[in-house]
Amino acid sequence: MKARVHVMLKDGVLDPQGEAVRHALGAMGFDGIEGVRQGKVIELDLADGTSEDRVAEMCERLLANTVIESYRIEVL
Amino acid sequence: MKARVHVMLKDGVLDPQGEAVRHALGAMGFDGIEGVRQGKVIELDLADGTSEDRVAEMCERLLANTVIESYRIEVL
Repeated sequence: MKARVHVMLKDGVLDPQGEAVRHALGAMGFDGIEGVRQGKVIELDLADGTSEDRVAEMCERLLANTVIESYRIEVL
Repeated sequence: MKARVHVMLKDGVLDPQGEAVRHALGAMGFDGIEGVRQGKVIELDLADGTSEDRVAEMCERLLANTVIESYRIEVL
């Protein structure tokens, strides 16, 4: 089975990468960009039968820093 | 409108970040992890009416390195 984990900075946490992308797009002539947030996506190829709870445990312990990041699990 | 862009390394391109995550998960006792690929997700807050083609242009010119990365656009 495959699972995809999205890790994004929580709202209110400054995102310098996203800001850099926003400025760069503006400088390249792309107008009307009101905000950019950048996060990570991690695709896991797992043994069949791995539970979503197990993936959540991976997120809590390694994949996300839950102080500043939120995560979302999508089982494919 | 909002758009989400997923940028992943193309198949066959070595992914050291993903490999590091795989090893770390294994070392933490998570078994059966056959592969991990790590990519970026970029959430764009755009002016209404921005076309998907325009977002594709942003990907081609800035957000993805299309030599080694593929991208996927999701309009939210």
